[in-house]
Amino acid sequence: MAGNTFGTLFRLTTFGESHGEALGGIIDGCPSGLALDLDFIQHELDRRRPGQSHIVTQRKEGDKVEFLSGNFEGRTTGTPIGFIIRNENQRSKDYEHIVDAYRPSHADYTYDAKYGMRDWRGGGRSSARETVSRVVAGAVAKLILKKYGITISAYTSQVGDIKLMKDYRKLDLTKTDSNIVRCPDALIAETMINRIEQVRKEGDTIGGVISCVVTGVAAGLGEPVFDKLHADLGKAMLSINAVKGFEYGSGFDGVSMKGSEHNDQFVVANKEVHTKTNHSGGIQGGISNGEDIYFRVAFKPVATIMKKQTTINSKKEEVEMVGKGRHDPCVLPRAVPIVEAMAALVLVDHILRNKTNAS
Amino acid sequence: MAGNTFGTLFRLTTFGESHGEALGGIIDGCPSGLALDLDFIQHELDRRRPGQSHIVTQRKEGDKVEFLSGNFEGRTTGTPIGFIIRNENQRSKDYEHIVDAYRPSHADYTYDAKYGMRDWRGGGRSSARETVSRVVAGAVAKLILKKYGITISAYTSQVGDIKLMKDYRKLDLTKTDSNIVRCPDALIAETMINRIEQVRKEGDTIGGVISCVVTGVAAGLGEPVFDKLHADLGKAMLSINAVKGFEYGSGFDGVSMKGSEHNDQFVVANKEVHTKTNHSGGIQGGISNGEDIYFRVAFKPVATIMKKQTTINSKKEEVEMVGKGRHDPCVLPRAVPIVEAMAALVLVDHILRNKTNAS
Amino acid sequence: MAGNTFGTLFRLTTFGESHGEALGGIIDGCPSGLALDLDFIQHELDRRRPGQSHIVTQRKEGDKVEFLSGNFEGRTTGTPIGFIIRNENQRSKDYEHIVDAYRPSHADYTYDAKYGMRDWRGGGRSSARETVSRVVAGAVAKLILKKYGITISAYTSQVGDIKLMKDYRKLDLTKTDSNIVRCPDALIAETMINRIEQVRKEGDTIGGVISCVVTGVAAGLGEPVFDKLHADLGKAMLSINAVKGFEYGSGFDGVSMKGSEHNDQFVVANKEVHTKTNHSGGIQGGISNGEDIYFRVAFKPVATIMKKQTTINSKKEEVEMVGKGRHDPCVLPRAVPIVEAMAALVLVDHILRNKTNAS
Amino acid sequence: MAGNTFGTLFRLTTFGESHGEALGGIIDGCPSGLALDLDFIQHELDRRRPGQSHIVTQRKEGDKVEFLSGNFEGRTTGTPIGFIIRNENQRSKDYEHIVDAYRPSHADYTYDAKYGMRDWRGGGRSSARETVSRVVAGAVAKLILKKYGITISAYTSQVGDIKLMKDYRKLDLTKTDSNIVRCPDALIAETMINRIEQVRKEGDTIGGVISCVVTGVAAGLGEPVFDKLHADLGKAMLSINAVKGFEYGSGFDGVSMKGSEHNDQFVVANKEVHTKTNHSGGIQGGISNGEDIYFRVAFKPVATIMKKQTTINSKKEEVEMVGKGRHDPCVLPRAVPIVEAMAALVLVDHILRNKTNAS
Repeated sequence: MAGNTFGTLFRLTTFGESHGEALGGIIDGCPSGLALDLDFIQHELDRRRPGQSHIVTQRKEGDKVEFLSGNFEGRTTGTPIGFIIRNENQRSKDYEHIVDAYRPSHADYTYDAKYGMRDWRGGGRSSARETVSRVVAGAVAKLILKKYGITISAYTSQVGDIKLMKDYRKLDLTKTDSNIVRCPDALIAETMINRIEQVRKEGDTIGGVISCVVTGVAAGLGEPVFDKLHADLGKAMLSINAVKGFEYGSGFDGVSMKGSEHNDQFVVANKEVHTKTNHSGGIQGGISNGEDIYFRVAFKPVATIMKKQTTINSKKEEVEMVGKGRHDPCVLPRAVPIVEAMAALVLVDHILRNKTNAS
Repeated sequence: MAGNTFGTLFRLTTFGESHGEALGGIIDGCPSGLALDLDFIQHELDRRRPGQSHIVTQRKEGDKVEFLSGNFEGRTTGTPIGFIIRNENQRSKDYEHIVDAYRPSHADYTYDAKYGMRDWRGGGRSSARETVSRVVAGAVAKLILKKYGITISAYTSQVGDIKLMKDYRKLDLTKTDSNIVRCPDALIAETMINRIEQVRKEGDTIGGVISCVVTGVAAGLGEPVFDKLHADLGKAMLSINAVKGFEYGSGFDGVSMKGSEHNDQFVVANKEVHTKTNHSGGIQGGISNGEDIYFRVAFKPVATIMKKQTTINSKKEEVEMVGKGRHDPCVLPRAVPIVEAMAALVLVDHILRNKTNAS
Repeated sequence: MAGNTFGTLFRLTTFGESHGEALGGIIDGCPSGLALDLDFIQHELDRRRPGQSHIVTQRKEGDKVEFLSGNFEGRTTGTPIGFIIRNENQRSKDYEHIVDAYRPSHADYTYDAKYGMRDWRGGGRSSARETVSRVVAGAVAKLILKKYGITISAYTSQVGDIKLMKDYRKLDLTKTDSNIVRCPDALIAETMINRIEQVRKEGDTIGGVISCVVTGVAAGLGEPVFDKLHADLGKAMLSINAVKGFEYGSGFDGVSMKGSEHNDQFVVANKEVHTKTNHSGGIQGGISNGEDIYFRVAFKPVATIMKKQTTINSKKEEVEMVGKGRHDPCVLPRAVPIVEAMAALVLVDHILRNKTNAS
Repeated sequence: MAGNTFGTLFRLTTFGESHGEALGGIIDGCPSGLALDLDFIQHELDRRRPGQSHIVTQRKEGDKVEFLSGNFEGRTTGTPIGFIIRNENQRSKDYEHIVDAYRPSHADYTYDAKYGMRDWRGGGRSSARETVSRVVAGAVAKLILKKYGITISAYTSQVGDIKLMKDYRKLDLTKTDSNIVRCPDALIAETMINRIEQVRKEGDTIGGVISCVVTGVAAGLGEPVFDKLHADLGKAMLSINAVKGFEYGSGFDGVSMKGSEHNDQFVVANKEVHTKTNHSGGIQGGISNGEDIYFRVAFKPVATIMKKQTTINSKKEEVEMVGKGRHDPCVLPRAVPIVEAMAALVLVDHILRNKTNAS
């Protein structure tokens, strides 16, 4: 169980390293008859692509996805969907200084410890470049979710200590992509962009938080007891590079509330069951209750900085290191579509799983 | 994939409802030759047992585990370990008021939505009573971890807004069980206990945070890319009843740091690789790096309160409800051994998984 | 992956040894709302029970199943169904001669080689007693299949060299249980019974073949490419103790046919698609085509004989051994319900899996 | 669980259709540090390639494998190995007659029944062309097995009613590839070739049996109770196109033996444990015992014949059909490397699984 497969019924298995021939994956379990909207899929990839603005890495990758199987005359056939994305703009030279040295807070040391070797070019498998395959599969999942009326909207809600305090219900989430940091509040967005600019000029990096809202999920998704819907969402998010924390609904703030304050009282409106408040974040007992699902994901600052750092090499000698190459000063803008993709994978998987609960 | 199995190589499958005949489980993949220390296992169960102090539920359960297979002459045989815990102190009457009404922020409504029916007695499968099986399996896992020199220490670090601010390195974690709230700082513990007393008297409940520290883990555990060690720990914690959030290492606080502040520089001490700081929480790129692993788990306030609440019944009519029976005003004290148990399951699973990475 | 779980969506995990406290299992993924017909389930167990006739082992086991969870007011709830069967008639003494010696063609030696130890009492986990749990779960599966109009009929078609040559379409399969060898042809049955009597008197044992017919399966079950319906049926059968071979449809005999003879031509009758012949055994390309599914399972002679044999002990010394205790001279009669149970598990699993193929 | 993944720890997931862009797969769980011998892998592919002799299909495919990830500087890195094989010699025209008609004993009808549509070109996913990915992964597995001293030798032992009666111990299995039908006995081989020639000229096809011998497997592989070594081998073989039966050791012939004849008595030779006979086929209780493993696989005659057949179309009307294109008159010669590949996958998987049984 080497860990490169995600999902149980809607399964994504990925392969590929940052500077290898290609990255890609296999989507197994995609229902047949789905119209594969290639423009939409490529659009999702473009949202994640490097070089799309001055506050992200300037690597130039076309990131064109090639589908190799599983569709016929524009529709999925129910058989596995293989796809690849060729690597184009590799500059392995940028990484020669780490052939024998471990970048602080990177996976160089731990991969060596685990496998006895590593592909040092661009971080190899540990590079966030791997997520390109997740975005492809997530886009296919989104096409399925559309049929169920489910939308997923992630956005940057914090960069460093600049925090968007407004509740998501008071935001226009269609505005998220209208600025390069992907924050739906234009003013806060500008401050965030300036902060990223600033740390970039310092040769430094900064972390942040992505919030995500899912609407249109019917009650009933999630499998007790271990595969609770939020547990699978949490694992999905924590599997994204640089993520350090996950909370849903009231999250960490909810711990200081009393039960009488925190409980979401049921009400009936237009013959539909709802709750007055939604501290539950749309999930009760691990199963969706029909309300909006929302959660927050914490990203640490990117480990590669352009400042001098002390570290060690494989002979356990102290060495100095300065970051090279083209890196993100802040992963948040490009991570927004990745968060959405992983959420989409979880939801489609649970929709399929839920089909088998009644005899 | 109905979600009642946890782990890949060291697998726990559980069954049982709050007021059914018995709860139990099967541990599959436990290596042979392990001395099954029954006293230790029962001791772990006793740490989770209801009725152990005045700040937890007063239900009286013996919670005696009976092992049915998988061991011979005191040692595990490599075959599956079946075990059961009989339910004794059931008072189904306490739940008759919810036969046809949904308790706010409970799983009553979502189970009905999912399965078209539910065992309403004590919450059925959605009850935290299910975790009794996790503690049994976690205790077996701890016996394995002992052989690797790995220790797991969870403790209550926050109750409501009473927060233990000290870093775990400044605490004596052997003191955790010396008070009934399981906080290693005696002074803070007392304040926490008073707070719980207070909300209990109000017929209310309160949430909190459990911190957990794992020492002695060698570098190399965790499987990229989806089964990162912290992703599996996160899922494990989020699968526990009432959990709303998970963070490891610097967590949500780390997002406002710069890369130059957050990076953990490698150093060599006594020929061993270490890091000066440990914002990584012992995990880099999803793989353990040999430092302490630490994480925090957020618990919401218990949903069952003794106050009057408005809710609905299955006919979508508004009804009033007051909690009955014997409930925890705060789950934290009893959740400490559950957090440890789930962490132990994850670690043993990854130890076994890591055995297969070299040819 | 220790191998004690069968199935993907309808999953059975079993535990228990021949002479331990109890055997049992957990059925996970059983749809909710199914009426649990306990009499039927016990009846299936009784068909497998030792001591039911003079041609099977005279061990006396009540084999009463106790359900512990997953049902409420007579119906399944969608949560895992835990069950146990207590061992009653253990005579560990009968096995003391094998504490340190390996019975020829048994699993004594291989368990020792694999696990470094073994529970020698009654063969421990390697005993066919484990299949008691399969029959319980298979009976639950049969209750589901009834709703789909699917029947499974296994019968003894060969004992030693006494072979029932008639095609299953010329047999009255309702007669199978009317004799103790479970062969639907009364005349052949009597010959078979005599043969078993004869070898039993000799202190010897004999093998045979069980045939199985499944009717009422709609077209569409089976998952290409690895989980073909017949591949999963084959694995299910080969996992039963003493099984040495599996063939479906034309099987080994089909290899000497030409394509023009072997091909099953499609015809339309009463607006339904059928095939003129059924060499395919109801499965084409791994997917059911709506015709009867039929297959044959080869069982070797029981390894425990009452004759003197030479073998070795754990010190690799030559020793002599004579079988003791109460053993089956031929497993076929009691294996008929086991074959049916395993087939039922496979079919329900594939019914559930097939629910997820259309979006 | 759509069925396109094989194995638990050494996992192959495949994708691709007969006439799509490409076929390929991902090998996950391959240990790091293995020298990837590309010549050997290509050589294995060449053994399976169409057009290699006049008794197999004359389709011309280069079948060049391209590795995309998981290796660095000639060695595996422990990360997933992605690979593709481009389709080159597609002639979709050859299949236009089946756009709307179901070939008898093919998967055309069942795919339509299951998925509501199908890629009719060359049979799409149901084509044996999919096995090209299995041979790639099997070749990688063989490289691992070499390090354990394990050899796998399959050979054609029957074509139609021409049967190689000799025991494998009396054959020189290094001669298998010295003739185009892959039978190690030159004389029998010639008769087989003539028979295939004959049926080919008739526009017909013929089935056969492949035998397989595995040497060098230590005692201890196989996981009771469901994942017995022979159960997993059986499923592997039954998942290959056109396979109708599987038997190991004494197989179907063993059923007419008595226990006293069938039992394999243990002996000690050169301080090693062996058995005098090997009716067990090297596996007892589902676990390898150190003796040679051997088994037989039955293949039906190819369904595509050049003779006129009656069948139906999707409107359930009777139509006539004559096979077109370039097809194998007998799959046996090209199936030999496929049988070996699948056996190799099973053995490596169980070697890895067995590493986790001792604590």
